[in-house]
Amino acid sequence: MSRRTAFFVSDQTGVTAETMGHSLMTQFEGLEFRPVTLPFVSSVDKAHEAVARINRAATEEGLRPIIFSTLVQDELRDIVLTANGLFLDFFGAFVGPLERELNIRSSHRAGRAHGMADLAGYTARINATNYALTNDDGTGGDYAHADVIMVGVSRSGKTPTCLYMALQYGVFAANYPLTDDDLEAGTLPARLVPHRRKLYALTIKPERLQQIRNERRPESRYSSRQQVNYELRAAEAMFARYSIPSLDTTECSIEEIASRILNTTGIERRLRP
Amino acid sequence: MSRRTAFFVSDQTGVTAETMGHSLMTQFEGLEFRPVTLPFVSSVDKAHEAVARINRAATEEGLRPIIFSTLVQDELRDIVLTANGLFLDFFGAFVGPLERELNIRSSHRAGRAHGMADLAGYTARINATNYALTNDDGTGGDYAHADVIMVGVSRSGKTPTCLYMALQYGVFAANYPLTDDDLEAGTLPARLVPHRRKLYALTIKPERLQQIRNERRPESRYSSRQQVNYELRAAEAMFARYSIPSLDTTECSIEEIASRILNTTGIERRLRP
Repeated sequence: MSRRTAFFVSDQTGVTAETMGHSLMTQFEGLEFRPVTLPFVSSVDKAHEAVARINRAATEEGLRPIIFSTLVQDELRDIVLTANGLFLDFFGAFVGPLERELNIRSSHRAGRAHGMADLAGYTARINATNYALTNDDGTGGDYAHADVIMVGVSRSGKTPTCLYMALQYGVFAANYPLTDDDLEAGTLPARLVPHRRKLYALTIKPERLQQIRNERRPESRYSSRQQVNYELRAAEAMFARYSIPSLDTTECSIEEIASRILNTTGIERRLRP
Repeated sequence: MSRRTAFFVSDQTGVTAETMGHSLMTQFEGLEFRPVTLPFVSSVDKAHEAVARINRAATEEGLRPIIFSTLVQDELRDIVLTANGLFLDFFGAFVGPLERELNIRSSHRAGRAHGMADLAGYTARINATNYALTNDDGTGGDYAHADVIMVGVSRSGKTPTCLYMALQYGVFAANYPLTDDDLEAGTLPARLVPHRRKLYALTIKPERLQQIRNERRPESRYSSRQQVNYELRAAEAMFARYSIPSLDTTECSIEEIASRILNTTGIERRLRP
């Protein structure tokens, strides 16, 4: 199978171009893409450099690359358009229809999507991140300020989900790992009782959890089938007993977990991506 | 100024639709958008529900909403297309040209962009996140496994940048906050010396740092102009003395900091968004 180079060309970070390109490429599963991000293409010189890199890849591979572009400035776009590749023009495709619908000309200024927001937005994000860090793994316990408190057994995905929600959405997410004592008691840990309505549980299939724990501590009690089965059964019984909404993370990415939680709980985002 | 509702409609998390919509909306600075994400529109029923919500917004506001769609399945797209709004069809715009270029039909299967990747990818992401957490703020200090070690004064953006690089790119990013002792000595902290080539410095303008520190500890020595000026001057002198590459984060979002670091250092990503 021949390989194609995919260029993500942007006048800013390239995050939007990568997201867009990645979404499209997943629709062509058999093909192998070599991804190359060209961020900060914000001058005529850099646009010419980008063209040279794309043309070199085309010559070396004997196949023209795919160019996912989020360039906004007409001048720079017109230069990169001359490269030997399939130019997919994100702004070109949608800015026109939007301008007609809104009856207003867009600014056509270099990408502002991932630039610095106002101080309030920045502070919200940093505060949420610090909150997640200091209320991780049952430490801290400032649950009064939580938007959501994740519960679940060790390695069910709580910590990365909390951090992702903080960075992506500015949401205050704490997490509480259920201890052996908690699981044995079968009752909600006393510290969580006053915040019961903020709880959200993560579960996971035993085979998958064993796999994940094995990567961390191979052949330990922690990663044994028996222990994993016991913890998950006890945890799920607790979630059912207290009607805690829960999500099986076995087949979920962190983005998906976060998105499903926000969607089902209706928690307000403090930030937009 | 009249307000428009912007719907982000997706058969998956909606992350791609939001990123795309947000990028475009920032080009229309004067307009106010009310963002609504409709994720997991993955059945005919849910598609009809989405149409009903969009039409309700159109009626209530007297202006038809903008619909940023990443729906892939023709059947669902055809339903949402009937809603009273401007339908911006991400897949429709680009999948056709890609199919012709690649000479292959795409799968047209529900979004896979933010679904579960393979276990290896998941593990890389989690390992990078755990690495960032345990090598934060000078604790840990497993610098041998770092891809990059961020240095800078308190609140220059090190921690969120490290976490973002871990979650977004699977990069192992440690961070070391320069202490008063370090700054006074003016020499590279002994623990960092063997890893000098991995260092990357964050700087920030004094006014901005004061603003950020003030949010945390108002009217403290920590947030005083004198202390902030002293720390930044001493830190920048150290970065210059040891030729540590540095970035001024004053006007940068976290995405931008991360992207610039990867771009200038050439660090390999272990994950694609």
